[in-house]
Amino acid sequence: MNLQDYEKIKAKSLILFDKANIILTEEEKKDLEVADFGLNKIEDTGLQLITYVNTDLVCAKELALLPYQTCPEHKHPKRDFDDGKEETFRCRYGTVYLYVEGEETKNRRMNPPQGDEEYYTAFNEIILQPGEQYTIYPNTLHWFKSGSEGAVVSEFSTRSTDDSDLFTDPRIKRILELK
Amino acid sequence: MNLQDYEKIKAKSLILFDKANIILTEEEKKDLEVADFGLNKIEDTGLQLITYVNTDLVCAKELALLPYQTCPEHKHPKRDFDDGKEETFRCRYGTVYLYVEGEETKNRRMNPPQGDEEYYTAFNEIILQPGEQYTIYPNTLHWFKSGSEGAVVSEFSTRSTDDSDLFTDPRIKRILELK
Repeated sequence: MNLQDYEKIKAKSLILFDKANIILTEEEKKDLEVADFGLNKIEDTGLQLITYVNTDLVCAKELALLPYQTCPEHKHPKRDFDDGKEETFRCRYGTVYLYVEGEETKNRRMNPPQGDEEYYTAFNEIILQPGEQYTIYPNTLHWFKSGSEGAVVSEFSTRSTDDSDLFTDPRIKRILELK
Repeated sequence: MNLQDYEKIKAKSLILFDKANIILTEEEKKDLEVADFGLNKIEDTGLQLITYVNTDLVCAKELALLPYQTCPEHKHPKRDFDDGKEETFRCRYGTVYLYVEGEETKNRRMNPPQGDEEYYTAFNEIILQPGEQYTIYPNTLHWFKSGSEGAVVSEFSTRSTDDSDLFTDPRIKRILELK
């Protein structure tokens, strides 16, 4: 991702946080994280994050998804210090289509990003409107996508260590490479 | 506290959450917790809470403080399963005056509730405006109070077990007795 695209995505994400009435400090806005997962198609597969706090025990983030943007399938496996990250997603704005391991939902609303279908296996659908939430326990495959308005999601979790996440798509790199 | 007062405080708290643009489900609104700490002067010493999630590991709540309402001094001591609750307070609306153990702030802005001064010992002042936050580690005495507008605060923490909190004021009962 080049710097110009990065700034464009940041600006769009800040508009979403504003629509969700999330008040951020100037430093948080500046440090907004853009994850393109190394797939080089950020508007299709990507996620924007603001980390409020991440101690040894507790993490809280705000996530922004652009319209129809997908956070790709992954799970949080056992770590040296625990059984894996546990996370609760609470929708604050827009609609979130969350897919987890389990019985495949018939007539589900969303599909994985086109061309990447082989890297998506979890199809139990949970739809979250503002005020609704869902807790994902460790080692559970999941992915999520927003609807037409984009979405803002609060995440409450145990310690976050992105480099321990296991993605179904082996091409994925979690750390952004800015060019 | 009688039922009529309880409903009045709930209604005032829901207005504060609305001012903070926090979207709640009907069930969350219905289950809003009112804590009068057994002191029978809720507008002076009290706290209103909505618990989003409280697993073995992670808890997230929204707190509402009426104008100049005080959450009384307490700490979170070691528990069977950890070193005590760790919590991050993030101000979403209004102003929060937080007082923690440490060097006493000169010319601090707020005082403890009148008549209860003997039960307040922590006077290191941290002022939180919307978007600002502070992390309180286990076993640290703290209390907080809002300014003229009241306040809404998001709390991100480890597991919450209210009955393990240690209040400086021995008269305090954490669980509300409705009459």
